[in-house]
Amino acid sequence: MLERMTNTTLILGLDPGLRRTGWGVISVEGSRLRWIAHGVIAPPEKAPFSERLLALFQGVCAVVAEHAPDEAAIEETFVSVNASSTLKLGHARAAALIAPAQAGLSVAEYAPTEVKKAVVGTGGADKTQIAFMVRRLLPACGEASADAADALAVAITHAHHRRARRLGAVA
Amino acid sequence: MLERMTNTTLILGLDPGLRRTGWGVISVEGSRLRWIAHGVIAPPEKAPFSERLLALFQGVCAVVAEHAPDEAAIEETFVSVNASSTLKLGHARAAALIAPAQAGLSVAEYAPTEVKKAVVGTGGADKTQIAFMVRRLLPACGEASADAADALAVAITHAHHRRARRLGAVA
Repeated sequence: MLERMTNTTLILGLDPGLRRTGWGVISVEGSRLRWIAHGVIAPPEKAPFSERLLALFQGVCAVVAEHAPDEAAIEETFVSVNASSTLKLGHARAAALIAPAQAGLSVAEYAPTEVKKAVVGTGGADKTQIAFMVRRLLPACGEASADAADALAVAITHAHHRRARRLGAVA
Repeated sequence: MLERMTNTTLILGLDPGLRRTGWGVISVEGSRLRWIAHGVIAPPEKAPFSERLLALFQGVCAVVAEHAPDEAAIEETFVSVNASSTLKLGHARAAALIAPAQAGLSVAEYAPTEVKKAVVGTGGADKTQIAFMVRRLLPACGEASADAADALAVAITHAHHRRARRLGAVA
């Protein structure tokens, strides 16, 4: 692991989904953001539901153990018109959320529009624009998949919000 | 802990909910059911969402650690007309489900109508009838709350289904 500077905070961003959960870790030092790592957890699709959830949970636990983030943030799930999809997404989101909570991390939640506003500047941005801006803000991240880029965008959103809160507190 | 007989199987039943998750443990030996324990996990209602989920998860983990069940069963969640309630229930159900899965247990899922049929004999039974029949089938359980009685009913349902599967396999 890298030497950690005292003023550096590591943030884990999560974009939950039962088939694919994106994750991204960035470091924040003042207003400077730096890419650390990203990836996607894809539980075996043919496995029983409980095993898929467990794989997702253990995947996020492994990321938390490896990168030891200080804070975590997760995207709020939009409620689908299909109630059974909504129910499944709720399961996946809980599996992703419990992993950092178990490690004692606070887990902030951001609506998709907040993430888009923080990263692209407008709540109506599409996935391509988000991926483009994530690469601009974190040049070292290279070609992240859409799920990983979304997770990095959530981490960036959290970095902006916590900085805004701090500046507000100082003023 | 009690001495375990070789032919005895311990079953954990779960009735998940974010405010109250009922659990019940029964032992099965042939066609004989015996009450072991039951309870309710009620996460602090005012805590942040991630902490409530974590409390639920850790509560079920503690039950699994204390009673060391061999198999687990959980009630399938009915999909509510309110999408945001459905989403929350999905989160709670995942928190309850991951705990036994993490301990290596298979987690069977039963629809509410299957539970009612197995315990009361009709899919249209109400909560009072379920609680009444649970007391008849497991006299030692005493006055279980509705959530705990539902969880014991799920465990009884699993006992019936696994016995039916075994008898089917023998025939």
